[in-house]
Amino acid sequence: MIHPAFFISDSTGITAETLGRSVLSHFETIDFDYIVLPYVDSVEKAQRAVERINLAAKDYGTRPIIFDTLVNQDIRRVIATSDGFIVDVLDTFLNQLEIALGKKPSCTVGRAKGPEQEARYRHRIDAVNFALDNDDGAKLDRYDQAEIILIGVSRSGKTPTSLYLGMQAGIFVANYPLTEEDLEDNRLPKALQNHRARLYGLTIEPERLAAIRTERRPNSRYAELRQCEDEIRQAEALFKRFGISYLDTTHASVEEISARILSEIHIRGHHRS
Amino acid sequence: MIHPAFFISDSTGITAETLGRSVLSHFETIDFDYIVLPYVDSVEKAQRAVERINLAAKDYGTRPIIFDTLVNQDIRRVIATSDGFIVDVLDTFLNQLEIALGKKPSCTVGRAKGPEQEARYRHRIDAVNFALDNDDGAKLDRYDQAEIILIGVSRSGKTPTSLYLGMQAGIFVANYPLTEEDLEDNRLPKALQNHRARLYGLTIEPERLAAIRTERRPNSRYAELRQCEDEIRQAEALFKRFGISYLDTTHASVEEISARILSEIHIRGHHRS
Repeated sequence: MIHPAFFISDSTGITAETLGRSVLSHFETIDFDYIVLPYVDSVEKAQRAVERINLAAKDYGTRPIIFDTLVNQDIRRVIATSDGFIVDVLDTFLNQLEIALGKKPSCTVGRAKGPEQEARYRHRIDAVNFALDNDDGAKLDRYDQAEIILIGVSRSGKTPTSLYLGMQAGIFVANYPLTEEDLEDNRLPKALQNHRARLYGLTIEPERLAAIRTERRPNSRYAELRQCEDEIRQAEALFKRFGISYLDTTHASVEEISARILSEIHIRGHHRS
Repeated sequence: MIHPAFFISDSTGITAETLGRSVLSHFETIDFDYIVLPYVDSVEKAQRAVERINLAAKDYGTRPIIFDTLVNQDIRRVIATSDGFIVDVLDTFLNQLEIALGKKPSCTVGRAKGPEQEARYRHRIDAVNFALDNDDGAKLDRYDQAEIILIGVSRSGKTPTSLYLGMQAGIFVANYPLTEEDLEDNRLPKALQNHRARLYGLTIEPERLAAIRTERRPNSRYAELRQCEDEIRQAEALFKRFGISYLDTTHASVEEISARILSEIHIRGHHRS
């Protein structure tokens, strides 16, 4: 059976969707069909959302689940007329927190961003640009500005992790690909020698690496299992020799890799305000 | 007054943090200091978390707020001994949903990912790589594979948006920079003519564009306000002439830009299961 789940918000819908997916993942035997309805910021849009919910109720033959983070009460009242089951994300917690914090929450839809939020956002975009500019060892002279330098063999997960850490946490991450020449040396590449405290290694199972490389360059020496095994063995030896923390990305998502790195190396970004 | 807020999880902590930040943003008069504690997956780690919470309670002179998505009851009991105020993210909803769905939730920590989740994740990483490979009009011959092609002048927000849509929604997004030659032509660039249905325009206020460009290339013609005004005016004329939907990125985050694009053009990624 497939169960429709709606995420409704007067803004992007990210909070409703993140929470909703997480909560619903605990019902492993049910398949959900997720529908995001962002920017429901007027009574008219709410009415259209109700139509979609009621249509889904009919189509799927079951009561849709609704996660909403709507603030405006008029809009909420419209959604409440639908055939769905509403999980109220905000009210549930706001009441509890009002007691804990001893303050009333403010209730405004689509609040203008404050200067601090603007600055935090610009910092994140600067960090994404930094990751792009410093991808694949492109600009070794800017490593001073990096908070983390990811190292590993080609296709071990450095670039997506750099971008994710920049986008989500505003952390400046450069990355350096360990080439065959670097690995055969068994020394720390020159460009990295002054930055040892900021190095973090990524490794991956050779079978998975060979599969990824085969997608990029089929039938190349680069993608051969034997070649991948050699590179990985040498890279891990290098990490151990120089006491560089590293982790295996084979079964980890960028979210998981990033959270692990941040929990291990305590930088500003982790304890972020 | 600064108030400490902890986000605790046996996994990445993303759900606890996203929800927690969203809920706490309603208390505009309080400054929060956010501390993420991911991978608290053992009683020992929970005890260390409790120490950090209690230390924060002392340092800040106030009761820390804790958002947790912990599943294991032994770990939760340890956290409950701390001096913090616990907002229980999961239990609150699981009980409600159990009634609505007529099923019991499964309770396992760090569940192994199913093949569907794996496939969905790989698709997201493929989409990030697609965005990187097709950035800035790099490979015009792969536009057939793009689900969206973002167009706009240099530094109007195309690249971060492409990456975000790939990373978060697994959508294949290429982007094409409108050059001065393209704009003077007042025709749709040749590379785009066969893909009109997939085009989406980004624009930006000239003053903001000049500021961004000045950071990249100070004192260049490229960064002059006059030049920015000309390009923007021509780009918007092009969007209108060819009926291309577009939006102004000046005051919008990548999350907001992405959500708006997805809510306007209905593609597989929006109604994602």
